Amino acid sequence: MKVLGVDPGLTRCGVGVVEGVAGRPLTMAGVGVVRTPADADVAHRLVLIERGLEEWLDRYRPEYVAVERVFSQHNVRTVMGTAQASAVAMLCAARRGLPVALHTPSEVKAAVTGSGRADKAQVGAMVTRLLRLAAPPKPADAADALALAICHIWRAPAVNRLQAAQAAARRTPAPVRTPKGTR
Amino acid sequence: MKVLGVDPGLTRCGVGVVEGVAGRPLTMAGVGVVRTPADADVAHRLVLIERGLEEWLDRYRPEYVAVERVFSQHNVRTVMGTAQASAVAMLCAARRGLPVALHTPSEVKAAVTGSGRADKAQVGAMVTRLLRLAAPPKPADAADALALAICHIWRAPAVNRLQAAQAAARRTPAPVRTPKGTR
Repeated sequence: MKVLGVDPGLTRCGVGVVEGVAGRPLTMAGVGVVRTPADADVAHRLVLIERGLEEWLDRYRPEYVAVERVFSQHNVRTVMGTAQASAVAMLCAARRGLPVALHTPSEVKAAVTGSGRADKAQVGAMVTRLLRLAAPPKPADAADALALAICHIWRAPAVNRLQAAQAAARRTPAPVRTPKGTR
Repeated sequence: MKVLGVDPGLTRCGVGVVEGVAGRPLTMAGVGVVRTPADADVAHRLVLIERGLEEWLDRYRPEYVAVERVFSQHNVRTVMGTAQASAVAMLCAARRGLPVALHTPSEVKAAVTGSGRADKAQVGAMVTRLLRLAAPPKPADAADALALAICHIWRAPAVNRLQAAQAAARRTPAPVRTPKGTR
């Protein structure tokens, strides 16, 4: 399976594509950051994030999109921008019928390092090792996006199947049911 | 000027279109609510909001879009959904090159009732009077969307002109400048 991980943010939106299945070595297909200028208005920044993410979706054609789940107990100023950027990521994926999974930062850290309270450096080091990279991806948002994708591949094969079925059900009409009592 | 007001929400996204200029009687062009099912996943709900808002933009062709500014000190559970829905509204507008203005709930209340702490009923009553409607628009989200549009028409002609110029500058390449010292 091929997963696009998105670490949402208005200034830097981390993106990373990982391919593989749980229990086998994983491969990085691509990693980067979609940036928007801090002096632009929010509406225009969201348009730039949409364009950037559409390019990633067009180029890598992932089957799943994993987005960091945003909590509002974080910094009040940044959380709104993060929520807005994550909305655009979810929208871009769902519009294409791709299943979207949300993972919390501690779920991602726990998946790749074994500890939900690991720091950035530890996450970066494990992403580098797991994807057999020459150096940790920079900036941290890019490494976090790869960690999200890895977490998704490892964490929830059952959730994936459920979400894929739900997404397919929305794309196609429901099957005709034979009424009870007839054959 | 024609303004689409959007009171963002995942369950009910209020929309209202008002035409007119400050100092003259205003006219309601349309009012309604974009609804999404509470049991759908967030990504799919954002797609439904996008589709709904696109229909409103296609049908009414507003020149400005006014969206309620979301604050994170509100209810933690609902604020994320509101922020995500407002992101979709801003995105839909900015993608068309429409200027987007954000107004706080108290700015809107103060504009239509004279008090920033007016209640829902008071806002509904003033919207009904100002737009010469037979009855207050229901639900409250629809009335709030109209109040946002009225607020925008009255509040900031200067802001509108600035935003329109900025949006136009992004749509068209910058004019060629004659270098200094040449004619």
